[in-house]
Amino acid sequence: MEKNLKIAVVGSGAIGSYYGGKLAAAGYDVHFLMRSDLAVVKNVGLKLREATGETVIPKVAAYASTQEIGSCDLVLIALKTTSNEVLKTLIPPLLKSNTTLITFQNGLGNEAFLADLFGKERVMGGLCFVCLNRVAPGVIEHYGHGALAIGEFCGEPKARTDALVAAFKEARIDARTTQSLERERWRKLVWNVPFNGLSMAAGNVTVDLILTDPGLLQLTRQLMEETIEAAARLGYPLPPELIDQQIERTWSMGAYKPSSLIDFIEGRAVEVESIWGEPLRQAKNAGASVVRLEMLYVLLKKLTAHHP
Amino acid sequence: MEKNLKIAVVGSGAIGSYYGGKLAAAGYDVHFLMRSDLAVVKNVGLKLREATGETVIPKVAAYASTQEIGSCDLVLIALKTTSNEVLKTLIPPLLKSNTTLITFQNGLGNEAFLADLFGKERVMGGLCFVCLNRVAPGVIEHYGHGALAIGEFCGEPKARTDALVAAFKEARIDARTTQSLERERWRKLVWNVPFNGLSMAAGNVTVDLILTDPGLLQLTRQLMEETIEAAARLGYPLPPELIDQQIERTWSMGAYKPSSLIDFIEGRAVEVESIWGEPLRQAKNAGASVVRLEMLYVLLKKLTAHHP
Repeated sequence: MEKNLKIAVVGSGAIGSYYGGKLAAAGYDVHFLMRSDLAVVKNVGLKLREATGETVIPKVAAYASTQEIGSCDLVLIALKTTSNEVLKTLIPPLLKSNTTLITFQNGLGNEAFLADLFGKERVMGGLCFVCLNRVAPGVIEHYGHGALAIGEFCGEPKARTDALVAAFKEARIDARTTQSLERERWRKLVWNVPFNGLSMAAGNVTVDLILTDPGLLQLTRQLMEETIEAAARLGYPLPPELIDQQIERTWSMGAYKPSSLIDFIEGRAVEVESIWGEPLRQAKNAGASVVRLEMLYVLLKKLTAHHP
Repeated sequence: MEKNLKIAVVGSGAIGSYYGGKLAAAGYDVHFLMRSDLAVVKNVGLKLREATGETVIPKVAAYASTQEIGSCDLVLIALKTTSNEVLKTLIPPLLKSNTTLITFQNGLGNEAFLADLFGKERVMGGLCFVCLNRVAPGVIEHYGHGALAIGEFCGEPKARTDALVAAFKEARIDARTTQSLERERWRKLVWNVPFNGLSMAAGNVTVDLILTDPGLLQLTRQLMEETIEAAARLGYPLPPELIDQQIERTWSMGAYKPSSLIDFIEGRAVEVESIWGEPLRQAKNAGASVVRLEMLYVLLKKLTAHHP
């Protein structure tokens, strides 16, 4: 991908700031739409703290509106899915005829939402397997992992898919092309459904406390089984050994707070519909038995009802 | 039952104070073991606030130890089940050869616990269908209902069963004899499992908020179905129309906080084992499908883990 391609990042939380920041640090022309962090980032830049050291991007092109950014070649969308409605007004100023939209958002339904609004040919998706937190305005801490799986909303990977993967690799991101974005999204849900969900439903517990409680660990496995069964019925078979792999991987995270738990504790909106609601609806339509997922969804919906 | 029979009440929270207080007001010789409310009750007595007016029992025989009470004819046990271990030392000073023990405690396993310690012939149980709160030391508010079902731990009702029912009736309690205490306990669990449980698991919600949330109302019905299935497998068939009856009855309670929710909010121990743990274990042993009950138990156990 040529470095003079103009990239916009819409939604500059941890995910948007991290992946956009990595691209900017690698020399790409990245423009960030920011809200709360705008003034700080304009003054002192972005900081990405990783085990390998801190990357500072001192001069960041940060904006308060997409009108100021103007039309782009690529728009990386990392807004919370609970704010998807505002994309209807945020995206149009960034569009020209061949602008590509890639959503790094959580859960299911986001590509379809963009496709309905702006045309399906534009739409790509990315799955982020990463532990990040925004610890202060413009400061992102990276706790591990970071792999990206990038795919097309419609059909097989294209030249642009591979070009974007190559760009992220150049920015030292472990990126790869996926043949099936939807299958990858279900693969990620196998982790997010239990760990993000139970971290809230069991009373604000970090993932290590889920792993060390025998009842919660068994429930985690059962929720993973339900998610894998739902994915299989929808035509996205996942290997059963994924359960052990995901649980093994989680042990290495220590007292990690899933992103939903952080939102929950801080009183912010939680992505209940994209992580639990839409998967539940698709699973039930496909005839999967998802009793625990349904119960978790019902509880989480009420638990988060008063979050804005 | 003769009024000179000596009765002890062990556990003088809302339930013990209310039913013991009603007996005392009717002229029975009732002795209350008290802890936090002892000084206040000794000074100003017990107050029972009901829709029909306030009953004041100005002179209450209240004690700090069962040694001071001494041997009794009848011991009414209304301690929280989370404190059952202390019954091992609280009960012996109250016993003579023919002392009857009746437990008004929640959930399953309490009669068996007493029978193992003090002999099964002594043991009776009572089910309280009532809405009560202790609103201040020595002050019990009654919000509705009040029916008592009284039965024997071993076998059919006896003369003493009917005598105790008659005594409660004289104290203006809607009491009746039950042929099967265990079946009554399961009947009560049909309400307690969902409403006490979901009021905590859905984020401290009163029962009206459960009824008005379509997802939680459906989950309530499903938990009731699981409880009824478990009871049936254990030999205690309950009518399926109980579900509609219980839900109908709950609408009349308004913004009622189940007793477990009050304990939970105030940071006190919650009776997780007797209301969810023991029923779950019995249900699974009997081969019942209780997926939601199991998930609820796992969540509640963790949610309440830091309560003393």
